Amino acid sequence: MKGQVKSITKKSQNISAWYNDVIERAQLAEHGPVKGTMIWRPKGFVLWETVQKILDTRIKDLGAQSVYFPLFIPYSFFSKEKEHIKGFAPDLAVITHGGGEKLKEPLVVRPTSETIMYDAFSRWIQSFRDLPLIFNQWCNVVRWEKRPYYFLRTTEFLWQEGHSAHENNEDAQKMVDEALKMYVDFYQKVLGLYGYAGRKSESEKFPGADATLTFEILMPDGKIVQGCTSHNLGQNFAKVFKVQFQDKVGKLQYVYQTSWGLSTRSIGAMIMVHGDDNGLVLPPRLASTQVVIIPITTKSSDNKTINDLANKAYELLASYSTRVKLDNSDQSVGWKLNQYDLEGVPVRIEIGSWEATNKEFSIGVRNNKSNYTVSKLEHLAENVQKLLDGMQISLFEKSKQFTKDNTRQADNYPQFKEIMETDRGFIEAFWCEDPDCEAKIKQETKATTRCLPLGSMETEGKCIYCKKPAKFRWLFGQAY
Amino acid sequence: MKGQVKSITKKSQNISAWYNDVIERAQLAEHGPVKGTMIWRPKGFVLWETVQKILDTRIKDLGAQSVYFPLFIPYSFFSKEKEHIKGFAPDLAVITHGGGEKLKEPLVVRPTSETIMYDAFSRWIQSFRDLPLIFNQWCNVVRWEKRPYYFLRTTEFLWQEGHSAHENNEDAQKMVDEALKMYVDFYQKVLGLYGYAGRKSESEKFPGADATLTFEILMPDGKIVQGCTSHNLGQNFAKVFKVQFQDKVGKLQYVYQTSWGLSTRSIGAMIMVHGDDNGLVLPPRLASTQVVIIPITTKSSDNKTINDLANKAYELLASYSTRVKLDNSDQSVGWKLNQYDLEGVPVRIEIGSWEATNKEFSIGVRNNKSNYTVSKLEHLAENVQKLLDGMQISLFEKSKQFTKDNTRQADNYPQFKEIMETDRGFIEAFWCEDPDCEAKIKQETKATTRCLPLGSMETEGKCIYCKKPAKFRWLFGQAY
Repeated sequence: MKGQVKSITKKSQNISAWYNDVIERAQLAEHGPVKGTMIWRPKGFVLWETVQKILDTRIKDLGAQSVYFPLFIPYSFFSKEKEHIKGFAPDLAVITHGGGEKLKEPLVVRPTSETIMYDAFSRWIQSFRDLPLIFNQWCNVVRWEKRPYYFLRTTEFLWQEGHSAHENNEDAQKMVDEALKMYVDFYQKVLGLYGYAGRKSESEKFPGADATLTFEILMPDGKIVQGCTSHNLGQNFAKVFKVQFQDKVGKLQYVYQTSWGLSTRSIGAMIMVHGDDNGLVLPPRLASTQVVIIPITTKSSDNKTINDLANKAYELLASYSTRVKLDNSDQSVGWKLNQYDLEGVPVRIEIGSWEATNKEFSIGVRNNKSNYTVSKLEHLAENVQKLLDGMQISLFEKSKQFTKDNTRQADNYPQFKEIMETDRGFIEAFWCEDPDCEAKIKQETKATTRCLPLGSMETEGKCIYCKKPAKFRWLFGQAY
Repeated sequence: MKGQVKSITKKSQNISAWYNDVIERAQLAEHGPVKGTMIWRPKGFVLWETVQKILDTRIKDLGAQSVYFPLFIPYSFFSKEKEHIKGFAPDLAVITHGGGEKLKEPLVVRPTSETIMYDAFSRWIQSFRDLPLIFNQWCNVVRWEKRPYYFLRTTEFLWQEGHSAHENNEDAQKMVDEALKMYVDFYQKVLGLYGYAGRKSESEKFPGADATLTFEILMPDGKIVQGCTSHNLGQNFAKVFKVQFQDKVGKLQYVYQTSWGLSTRSIGAMIMVHGDDNGLVLPPRLASTQVVIIPITTKSSDNKTINDLANKAYELLASYSTRVKLDNSDQSVGWKLNQYDLEGVPVRIEIGSWEATNKEFSIGVRNNKSNYTVSKLEHLAENVQKLLDGMQISLFEKSKQFTKDNTRQADNYPQFKEIMETDRGFIEAFWCEDPDCEAKIKQETKATTRCLPLGSMETEGKCIYCKKPAKFRWLFGQAY
């Protein structure tokens, strides 16, 4: 491949430069020719393919059916729900010409699909028997991005959007909760990321929703990524798009709706939290190659014995559905070790003369650089699986510990400001829930409300900013 | 669901009306609010999900890696290859505004991704060691459509596009041939559709290609669907985008490229060929429900025995990975029979009092309305599989026979015109390969050259139009 091999900036030195370097050096992605767009190279896209495969099954388990709605939405649809258009107007990409002609009505490239879907729901839903209606689509969406950043902020991004309609608010809320729970579980168990689940403030919630749930994840630089959202849309869209059903006693009612999504920014959060100065560190459950076997052959070694053992190890692990790769290419061993570190392959097995003679395996684990020896082929599969499982847990525990260490209470505004000027991270602080205070805090410190954690207990406090009564400690932080 | 139940127009009466009726009644799709766009409902989208699942494995077997390139392409990229922009300009959707501002350069919504991909290839390919490079992406593309038709002609459609770069033309041609072979096999074995594989004429080939291979499928109304294409791009794009590599002796060379795609129109062809007056007829390998079990319970029947047997049958078939559904909903038996006919479920098993008492199964097969009795549970799985396999073959054989019956030789132009005015279908006719004759034939009869079938033998003949010497009989027909 073309281009100079440049070294990776140290993560501790400049995390933005490190992040860009890792992504480009590991050949995950490149910037597209249109500002804000991104080219997904094979090693990057395979991560999203895996996310899709795992999450799609879980989404279907929630009762969702797969659909696909058009990319182009009439501008008039979009402007029907007043909060919705207000929230999205600045980010829209607009089509004015098609098929060589100027269009009568400009078209919006979907930034999200509530409007076009719910217009259809109004035709498809008639009776309580048609409810709940739960749909999901995997697609590309466009929201104009002026400060692009790989995976985390791109003009076009990939996601899934779930949409549902229910008879009552209770059922809708249950859907919202279940979707969030699915995402949290996915982040924790598959991506190995800890975070806080909670409710968004009125000004941070989805434009057109009654309430938005979120999962907020701390990055190593003290900034925070919104990992997903799950919205209770109430009857807001139902009233605008006339989505009505006859209930069990024959009365016409508006449906209660939800929408929920997880996007390719999840990949960005995973890279940023787990990666190190040597490159990517992939959680074993996400990695398309979980184990790489490297035979170390030299001119003087008994290469047949080495390769035979490497092949046996490969076949054994493959038979247990471990995603294993045997690299007997003619690249140097040093190159291979660096390359698989860069690519973040969780477990590396080296087989040289010593190992071949003694029927041993030297095993390295990517995240903590620890080394192990397994003494017999029949113990290999079990031990590799233990190391993979251990690494998966260890990545999560590290993310959890880091988040807890960087979650601080601020009892007054000077303290709050000091934290934002130094470590950032999550700040727990009383807030009166007045959007004015929220806006001023953001302006002065860059911190926004991230969420009110689920299960927060009501108590008595004073707003960190205006000192008026406040019921809850909210989580603040600087968003990506 | 809302809306009057309207009956389906007879296929023999008006095939366009029948096609629209079937698609809407079986709830596969609906028109989108923007002209030319289409809403994929769950029963429609699941067909594409299945196509993707089956074809993706085969594409990866060809050595392709999954990638994703941006939706938006700078207009300037698009206009670099002269034939390419000439071919696509009339169909482009153009973005002029983004993020609330007028853009400096208009953007094209991808109608295909050669230009944006090969610009990247020029950075990624350096040496012969980087070749072959074989990529595939599943995505949406936009080509403005003024006469939309479900699945077959939509402004936005879904497809996969494969792209490769090779050291020499021989390797590129091998890729083109393998891709076509994969598509033909998929059409024949999975979708149950016969057709002709061949090479496009100079005026019908892909804009920017040296040569285009195609698989052409006859529809019941005598018109023809182009089922897929596989292009040998030669060095045309390589020269424009400077995609070069150092060969084994250190000389700088342009790569040889290919691209190949199959789109959602494959679903349209499948519906149109196999469907009948009662609705869809789905090939078993494509059907997400291959078998439906309907217990026929009445007030006087022994419903426990019936339901027990139905459950046993369900579990047995599911254990063999048959995609089976047990419908014990409270809809009437008549409704169910009509509904599963409409949806095209290949095999139906009815279990009533008689069957429960005698431990028998009454089996109906969707395509030929034949009925069978299987006398013991232990024979059920084997017999159902035979019926599914038989139906799969029978659909293909019918398509093959129909195509052969409607492939006619025309030895003079009056004969050619008469066929086009009556039965249409495929016409084999000598053509001198002069684009002027081709254009005039199209203007006068609506027939275009569909392809020169692979393996056609050179001989001596006279052009059907100008009577000048012609070497081959080409296949003509009216395109969808």
